[in-house]
Amino acid sequence: MINKLIDKIQKTGAPIVVGLDPMMKFVPDHIKKLAFESKGENLEGAAEAIWLYNKQIIDKTYDLIPAVKPQIAMYEQFGIPGLIAFKKTVDYCKEKDLVVIGDIKRGDIGSTSAAYATAHLGKVQVGDNLCAGFDEDFVTVNPYLGTDGVQPFIDVCKEEKKGIFILVKTSNPSSGEFQDRLIDGKPLYEHVGEKVAAWGEQLMGDHGYSYVGAVVGATYPEQGKVLRQVMPKSFILVPGYGAQGASGKDLIHFFDDNRLGAIVNSSRGIIAAYQNEKYSKFGALNFADASRQAVIDMITDIDQAFASVGK
Amino acid sequence: MINKLIDKIQKTGAPIVVGLDPMMKFVPDHIKKLAFESKGENLEGAAEAIWLYNKQIIDKTYDLIPAVKPQIAMYEQFGIPGLIAFKKTVDYCKEKDLVVIGDIKRGDIGSTSAAYATAHLGKVQVGDNLCAGFDEDFVTVNPYLGTDGVQPFIDVCKEEKKGIFILVKTSNPSSGEFQDRLIDGKPLYEHVGEKVAAWGEQLMGDHGYSYVGAVVGATYPEQGKVLRQVMPKSFILVPGYGAQGASGKDLIHFFDDNRLGAIVNSSRGIIAAYQNEKYSKFGALNFADASRQAVIDMITDIDQAFASVGK
Repeated sequence: MINKLIDKIQKTGAPIVVGLDPMMKFVPDHIKKLAFESKGENLEGAAEAIWLYNKQIIDKTYDLIPAVKPQIAMYEQFGIPGLIAFKKTVDYCKEKDLVVIGDIKRGDIGSTSAAYATAHLGKVQVGDNLCAGFDEDFVTVNPYLGTDGVQPFIDVCKEEKKGIFILVKTSNPSSGEFQDRLIDGKPLYEHVGEKVAAWGEQLMGDHGYSYVGAVVGATYPEQGKVLRQVMPKSFILVPGYGAQGASGKDLIHFFDDNRLGAIVNSSRGIIAAYQNEKYSKFGALNFADASRQAVIDMITDIDQAFASVGK
Repeated sequence: MINKLIDKIQKTGAPIVVGLDPMMKFVPDHIKKLAFESKGENLEGAAEAIWLYNKQIIDKTYDLIPAVKPQIAMYEQFGIPGLIAFKKTVDYCKEKDLVVIGDIKRGDIGSTSAAYATAHLGKVQVGDNLCAGFDEDFVTVNPYLGTDGVQPFIDVCKEEKKGIFILVKTSNPSSGEFQDRLIDGKPLYEHVGEKVAAWGEQLMGDHGYSYVGAVVGATYPEQGKVLRQVMPKSFILVPGYGAQGASGKDLIHFFDDNRLGAIVNSSRGIIAAYQNEKYSKFGALNFADASRQAVIDMITDIDQAFASVGK
């Protein structure tokens, strides 16, 4: 799946991923009205609203981008109906040949991590049949429990030719509270990065990058520079672009000289673009056209950042 | 909810929690047959099997115990039908007046943690209505992202009078890989423990314990001793008893002198007791009676451990 991701990045020229993180405040009123009329002002109605909203954004952007990253929490908050909308979104994106990165940040002790890996990347044995639960292409994983929490994900990746991105340095303001603390003279995130590099050796793709990647926030470009060296074969999923404050110039050190090695996520900057002054001319009715324009502008921004350093 | 948990621990004399972590290999054949006949050998059939299995165990143990801890991964592996079985289990346990600790180990950046907190402890606004997603009483939380990943859970706890248990030192063999690394002369888990203590000050219950608790593995009794001092007002959820290797004597330092301050989890040691040589006389048909006996034996084991040190 890392091969497919890289092929699609090269084909689209867009090292970006659209974060499908639908909050109700992003969903235009006309979509909510439609959904509530058919399903009610309840969890089912909310789930229908986010599904209709997602579908239009996917329809207007899938040809420009290699991948999407639905954040499962935004669906989970609507209970079972929300998770049904998550699964519909995953399936629909795969129909559109997009690579789907499930942003689930799971991680637990061995047998429990194995269950999560099965849930999201693998297949579970039921009687004589093998059944898939959510069936994403990649998922994000929390490393706090150490190797025996991570290895079950890698085992399923080997079997299914899928991948993971392990949290190394997250994009949020207080990520440094534990992740930046010095251990033997190096911050914790570097130690985690070294482990990611070692775990990744087990499962290499065709383009010199491993199926085992890392999450490093765009909001910490200096740390990204170091981590790019610490994990030379790990693809980096980079959140924090746009709404969280980072721009193209913060990103260049995450990439190698072939414009590979990283994929940059933007969520609300794209899916809620119509609420941004810059794209207000589209209006709420054409929210998905605003998203398309925001994707085009993000690709241009990153292109210009590459060009400015001759990459 | 910490008040209810403590009241129920005192009433039952059982500082224990039954981990409802149903793996298919634990479910007796007669239950699987029943479920597959009604729903098929698919995710729906598997979900029906684990629900029927859970229900009998709950029916045979609920009067002896204060709380249950369903591990959501074991349901999530069966996709949407599995999560429906999770929700049915949560609701049924609450009907039986059990305190429900959702073992979800979620944790993300601010707005995403807020969505998880809403999903599992709070209510989400849909149009004019407030709707609950999963509605557990407590959940477990991963601290790797720092304060802004944890605070949204605490905010929802304040509103709903619910609680969390934050991963401090987990029970698995490789938990030390990051958690034991020394920072300023102290292991990471102690730094996390100090944060848990500080976070907990915001939200104190009636018995001197906070709504903000910690997870510390029974498999690390020495660390438990230290952490009991570091977090004097944090209730400790202690996994690792039984199948993972810890016994009553490993637990005493997790408790205060009133036999409070901790709640010990056992999962397969109770729910799959009938598969253990010690309880084989019950047979698979009476698996839930074996679970009841295992609960009684666990209470006795912990009682004896208290008695041996005069607690």
